[in-house]
Parts: sequence; structure tokens; C-alpha cells
Amino acid sequence: MMVDTTLGVTAPGGFLASGVSCGLKSHGGKDLALVVNDGPEFHCAAVFTTNRFPAAPVQWSKQVLAHGRDIRGVVLNSGGANACTGDQGLNDARAMAEAVDHHLHCGDTSVLVASTGLIGVLLDMNKVEAGISQAADQLSEHGGLDAAQAIMTTDTVTKQAGYTSDRGWTVAGMAKGAGMLAPALATMLVVLTTDAIPPGPLQPVLNKATSISFDRADSDGCMSTNDMVVLLANGHSAVVADAQEFQEALNSVCVSLAKQLIADAEGAEHAITITVEEAHSVEDGLEVARSIARSNLFKCAISGNDPNWGRVLASMGTTQADFDPDTVDVFFNDVGVFLGGAPGVPRDQVDLSEFEVTVRVNLHAGGHCAVVWTNDLTHGYVSENADYSS
Amino acid sequence: MMVDTTLGVTAPGGFLASGVSCGLKSHGGKDLALVVNDGPEFHCAAVFTTNRFPAAPVQWSKQVLAHGRDIRGVVLNSGGANACTGDQGLNDARAMAEAVDHHLHCGDTSVLVASTGLIGVLLDMNKVEAGISQAADQLSEHGGLDAAQAIMTTDTVTKQAGYTSDRGWTVAGMAKGAGMLAPALATMLVVLTTDAIPPGPLQPVLNKATSISFDRADSDGCMSTNDMVVLLANGHSAVVADAQEFQEALNSVCVSLAKQLIADAEGAEHAITITVEEAHSVEDGLEVARSIARSNLFKCAISGNDPNWGRVLASMGTTQADFDPDTVDVFFNDVGVFLGGAPGVPRDQVDLSEFEVTVRVNLHAGGHCAVVWTNDLTHGYVSENADYSS
Repeated sequence: MMVDTTLGVTAPGGFLASGVSCGLKSHGGKDLALVVNDGPEFHCAAVFTTNRFPAAPVQWSKQVLAHGRDIRGVVLNSGGANACTGDQGLNDARAMAEAVDHHLHCGDTSVLVASTGLIGVLLDMNKVEAGISQAADQLSEHGGLDAAQAIMTTDTVTKQAGYTSDRGWTVAGMAKGAGMLAPALATMLVVLTTDAIPPGPLQPVLNKATSISFDRADSDGCMSTNDMVVLLANGHSAVVADAQEFQEALNSVCVSLAKQLIADAEGAEHAITITVEEAHSVEDGLEVARSIARSNLFKCAISGNDPNWGRVLASMGTTQADFDPDTVDVFFNDVGVFLGGAPGVPRDQVDLSEFEVTVRVNLHAGGHCAVVWTNDLTHGYVSENADYSS
Repeated sequence: MMVDTTLGVTAPGGFLASGVSCGLKSHGGKDLALVVNDGPEFHCAAVFTTNRFPAAPVQWSKQVLAHGRDIRGVVLNSGGANACTGDQGLNDARAMAEAVDHHLHCGDTSVLVASTGLIGVLLDMNKVEAGISQAADQLSEHGGLDAAQAIMTTDTVTKQAGYTSDRGWTVAGMAKGAGMLAPALATMLVVLTTDAIPPGPLQPVLNKATSISFDRADSDGCMSTNDMVVLLANGHSAVVADAQEFQEALNSVCVSLAKQLIADAEGAEHAITITVEEAHSVEDGLEVARSIARSNLFKCAISGNDPNWGRVLASMGTTQADFDPDTVDVFFNDVGVFLGGAPGVPRDQVDLSEFEVTVRVNLHAGGHCAVVWTNDLTHGYVSENADYSS
């Protein structure tokens, strides 16, 4: 299913957005985004980090959703994660939501909050509240790109993706995330919007889509305290989406955003797709794929254009997955460097100079397949994470 | 218990060793070591990698030990791991052992083999056999340091440690290992020797010592195909060691070697000791300590002298260990940067400019403690593992 990466959160009808600069980022630039659902319906589903130190905005947003209120919008800031900030942090997250309510003239508090940036530092609420006021004034049905820009941290490009159905509805979204990217989400904030009338409850559809997209992206194995994926649906198109098409569209948009996240991960010089074939189960395939994706030695080798299959095997060898070491195959960019448990085509036949790299493992243990996306470990990653506090 | 890092495998009486250059290392240097037990007894215990792709020398050595024969010595080479090399690799490992037997005039094959270097490449057996011949000729009761030099790969210094009992016996050893260093061993080869008459079976004593030393060293989370720790005992001192002193001595020697490995890990600019206190169980403490030790973001922060406690919490938050996020404490170099679940002393009060760094976490969940040693993630690590095949 083809997605259009120029479509953002205001591509579906009935959504407004904005992105402004309020001084949270030390180097300037947009740092506060607002996405507002203009109705007529106000459905929402969300997936949050499973980290046991959830940031204040995560705690707040879960609480709002638990009340079952209509969700009118999401306010997001970069330049500060508001994580591990105690009671004051929670008060600040609530104040952000209330400030949006005030500007939107909502009754009950019905706004989600998302933050990204340095952990353990309180937000400058004077700046944040001025930013919210400005963002509310600038809300526009063309504001999607501004919002996508305002949530960037070490991202170098905006991430958007959307799909428009022939039946007259659209689903689209934006994402940010460059480090602390691992399954069970990443340091990523994702807002998805649709003007379809959902074919059924939104949450299972979102769970399914995230399980095969964001949960398969593993940049650096580090899980954030702030991850959030939100899906807002307003029925503005007046079309009830077909259940299968809706699921597939959401899957495709999420996969596109997940791959954009990996391709722009901190320091990435190669985007790596790891496919494990003929696994006994999807879980086995994922365990093997993730063990490879988390090998620093493998990831360094790729950054040096070295098809070091020994490091792939060494990673696989740490798993409990069902396979016979004497029969596995490993392919780099479709060149079989290890076949039937023995060295295959010489490694110098593999060209890893392109940005996209594929590693394919065949376990010969069953009929399941799993894919994980990762990127290489580079000097850029070390520089971004050693030389600056984040 | 104090150990002496000038004592190597020939410090205990009745052991001979040598280290020679036979051309396996492309840049020259010693690359083949021999450690021989001259008796009168020939006890041996060993711990091997649990990797499911064990290298040929690991397969061979396990097989020899399973036969219960007296173990006369260990031949070790750098410059090639002989891993994932199929039947030819296994034949080569056997040939190495037989060549040593031949020179030592042993009857049955009773020699262990250990290799380290690039995975997936066959050894040049002409060079290896010439090296074994030369090493056999040069065996000496002063050869410990030569042997320690010959097993180095990306190590920058030799690693030795020993302990001499007032009762007239010594235990000592050598180690190598710079990358692929993780619990359940590392890319490390360790040979330990003692002239004590062991107070009982050697294997449980060695298991205990490795469980609190090499298994607690986690440099880069990558498990090797070649790890091996061998303990040889010959009773040459004619003194039966006291069981407790023997265990403690072996523990201390292994801890010293493990810490030397971490301090010299690829690219290490900081050696980091992570202590988890007041854990509900040792397992809980280890899970928390390892989650921190494996966070690339945390390890990059340390390399930049940044006491980024947010990354410590984010790692801890991914574990299942028993603790209340609202009561934990985190200390960097004994400065309480996060206390009782809230920000503590400002991070600029922490000075990480020294090589040794301590991170201490108090879970307030029980009476157990666990320690893991790791090092920072630096440009040097990326260079060593991206720019050269290994």
C-alpha cells in the first residue's frame, strides 16, 4: 500500500495544527506543536512507553484517556522531556493541557501532552505557556508541517506519511525520534490523524499497527521514558472506513514513519533491514533479528562497510530460538556469505557502500518470518551522545 | 585479598610457558602461546562460551575434557578465531593439540586449544605448526609473560594476576580480551594455574570464581564464540590448600583479571563500576546493573564526562526487578544526583574526568547487592570495530 510522505497531520479533514518557537531549544527553532481535532467526533487511541519511569506527560495523558473523555488535541514540546521531575513535573504537564483547553474553550480537560528532550529538568513554564498561546493563535488546516518541525530534536528531517483512500478518507501522521529508539517504542512521539469514521474500536487497530512498525524499529536498544503514539479520529469525511483497508492503511503509514525514524537515527550511515526467514515462530524470528540489531560489533562493522557475518552468527548464538547452527544461512544484500552452517560466498563479493543494507537469515526451522529495522553504530552516534547532554 | 599483577601462569611451580611469533597476525608480533603443566598432577577445570556457534577449539577442548584425561597443557593462538569454519576447522584444532602432544611426547591427546581473532577464516596450519614447534622449544618456567603477550589481539597491555599463600602455594593467570566482552564470558581467553593440591574438585571452585568475575564484566554486550577459562592444577607445592583460602584467592585473581579486561576494553576511556544495592535478590541487582551497562546512551554520556542520570533511570525502567520508581537513589562517584525518586544534587557537582567512574543505585527493595563492570562507548570503539575487520 503506497503512502505519501508529504501528507501530515492536517491532511485529513477537520484537523488543525501549528508549530512555533517559544525558546525551549537552546539553539532556537520551533519547539512547541499543537494538533487539534475539530470534530465532529473525538475518538482517540494511544500507545505509551512501558518504561517504569514514565515521564510526567505520559502519566498525565494516560490519566486523561482513562477518564474516557473526548480527546480534543495534543500539545507537544521538544527541548525538555519533563521526565523524572516529580510532582512539579506532573503539575506542569497538567498546566500545559489546561492552557490548551483555555485557548480552545473546551470544558473538561481533554488534551494529551507529549514532551521530548533532556530528562530530569523542569520545563520553563512561562515560555511553554506563551508558546501555547502563540500556537493556538496560529492553528491552521495547513499547519501539519510546522507541527512536524516543532517536535524535532536531533532529527535532521521531518517525518510524515499519509494514505488517502479512494473512498474519500485519509489517515496521516508525523513522527520524531533519533536516539533512544528501541522496540516497545523509542524516543519517539507520533501523532496520527484520520477523518474516517473508524470501522470499530480504535485501540486494537493502533496496537496491531504499532506492533509491526514502531515495535520493530531498534536503533540503539534504549527505551525512552517519553514514547507516545496517538491516533485521533474525527469522522469528518462522513465515510465509514472498510476495516481491512483501514488497518492496512494505518500499518503502512506506521511502517513508513518507523523506517523514516531509523533512516534518520542519530549518526546513521546505513539503514539496515534484518529479515529472519523460516523461523519456528514469529517470536523466535524476532528474538534472532533483535539479537543482531543490538550487536554493537555488527553495527560498527556495517558502518565500516564490512559484511562481518561472524558477528551476525555470534549474536544469533546467544538466543534461545529454535534452529540448528549447522544448517543456517546468512545473506548480506542477498549474497549468501554463510550457507548451510559453513562459509559461503567470500565476503569481498558483498558491496555495502549503499545506504540501504539488508541482512537476511534463514533458520530452516519453520514457516514464520520477522523483520526488524536498525541502523549502524557510527562516530556520529558517539558524538551526538557523548558531546552533548540530551 | 591482595593480588600481584606481575605474577603470570609460570608463577606457580611446575608450569612452563612460551609465546612466539609465527606470522598469524598481519602486523607481526607474538601470536602463539603454550602453557604446559609439568606435573606431578594434572587436574583441570574449564568454563566455555555458551554461544550456540562455539568455535572449533571450543568444541575440541570440551571433547577432550569430556574424556576425563589428564590435561597436559593449553595451546593458544591469536590472529584467527577458527570459528564457523566447519569440519576443516575442527580438524585444524585437533591437529594443533596433536602437534603439541608430539612435541611433549604425551601419549593420548590431552591438550586444550584456544583461538581468538577473525571469525570464519581458516588458520594457516603451516604457520601454526611451525609456531607450535618453536613454542615447544622455548618452553620455560619464566615464559608466563611471553605467553600473555602472544594471546593479545586489540589488547594494549598484558593482563596477569596472581596470589601467593603464606602456606606455600600460588595461583596465577593471564587473560586477553578487548571486544565482544560480555557476561557468560567475553572474547576472552584466560589460563589459570596453581601448584596447590586442590582441596576438592576444581570445577565448582572455578564456576564460583567466574560467576562473580568474568560473568560480571560487560564491555559491549557481545558474546564471543571462543571464550574459554581454563584452570590447571599440578600439586607441585605438595600443599593441600585450605578450601576457603583457595576459593578466595581464585576469586581475587579472576576479579583482578576481569577488571583489567574492562579497563583495556576497545576504546575505553572510563572504567565504570555499577553497584546495585538493597536489591530484593542478587538476580534483580544483576538485571538492573546489566541494563545500565548495556545502554549505549549511558555509555556515550560517560565518555563525554556527562553524569546523565536520566539515561540510568531509563535503562532501569526497562527491567522487571522489584523496586519502587518513587524511592530509588542514583549516585555518580558518590554524589546523589537522584534521591528518593526525585532529582538530587545538581549534575554539575559530579566530576567524571578521572578514568574510574562509579555508578551506585539503591533500590530500597531488599538486602542483596550486585556489581557489574563496564566501560564507556567511545570513538575509539567505533574506529576499532568499523575500520578493521575482526
